[in-house]
Amino acid sequence: MAVKSLQDLFHETLKDIYYVEKKLVRALPKMAKNAESPELREAIEAHLTETEGQVERLEQIFEIVEKRAQAKKCEAMDGILREADEVLSEVEDGATDAAIIASAQTVEHYEIARYGTLASWARQLGMDEAAELFDETLTEEKEADQKLSALAERTSNQQAAAA
Amino acid sequence: MAVKSLQDLFHETLKDIYYVEKKLVRALPKMAKNAESPELREAIEAHLTETEGQVERLEQIFEIVEKRAQAKKCEAMDGILREADEVLSEVEDGATDAAIIASAQTVEHYEIARYGTLASWARQLGMDEAAELFDETLTEEKEADQKLSALAERTSNQQAAAA
Repeated sequence: MAVKSLQDLFHETLKDIYYVEKKLVRALPKMAKNAESPELREAIEAHLTETEGQVERLEQIFEIVEKRAQAKKCEAMDGILREADEVLSEVEDGATDAAIIASAQTVEHYEIARYGTLASWARQLGMDEAAELFDETLTEEKEADQKLSALAERTSNQQAAAA
Repeated sequence: MAVKSLQDLFHETLKDIYYVEKKLVRALPKMAKNAESPELREAIEAHLTETEGQVERLEQIFEIVEKRAQAKKCEAMDGILREADEVLSEVEDGATDAAIIASAQTVEHYEIARYGTLASWARQLGMDEAAELFDETLTEEKEADQKLSALAERTSNQQAAAA
């Protein structure tokens, strides 16, 4: 059994979030394709571009800590995406966007938790450059989450107006 | 294949978060027992009491919607807790609290995402009483998350001072 220091925890969690972001790059196009409203589709496509940038930022951090960029299976993310797929396969027209937004927000919040932790650990370990990169992504994830909340409101108002 | 309306989505997600909270009631005592600092132990114990109240609040909501209180396996939560157990079994003294706080924050953020969605859907479905109950829990979860962030900072400062 490996006994882990804060530095090891940092490295393991970095591999965890790298897995999450890379998996999200593959999952977002399917979410965008299934979106009913053009606004949601565009928001997801914009977040895909952002996510690709976040993957690159993580690769920069692997360079800073002089480790090979490597993903480690994240069971939480796999669980979130399995639930998202299941719901999407069962949902009826008119509720699809609500289901997609809800799933996307669980991903965003997993990322917000992880980036918050990683930024804090990076500072504790004296890696200020890495901490700033995590903070940049953290800001993007929080904004993505708020945008999804706003879209959820708007989608529901449009449905109410059309009813 | 069940075709699901927003009402069905609401009910499925309610069963999902009920599973999460009940599972957390069983997981928190282990986290508290493993905590190194008394502040973290007390914070987790306080959150256990709060979580028991949140379970009751969910049971009230099941009553409001006239459904049997029923939990539905949440793969995301199971994944989060498996990762938490794995990390805790491997971490060395001095980094235990950092690991516990990080795991607890992924749980809090999963809950924040879910309660935000449920409050929004409850309003769309005209269930204002349920929405208010979700909001109460949402506020508690956000405060619990902030408290954990503050504890992470404090723990690290104490370690730095002792080094």
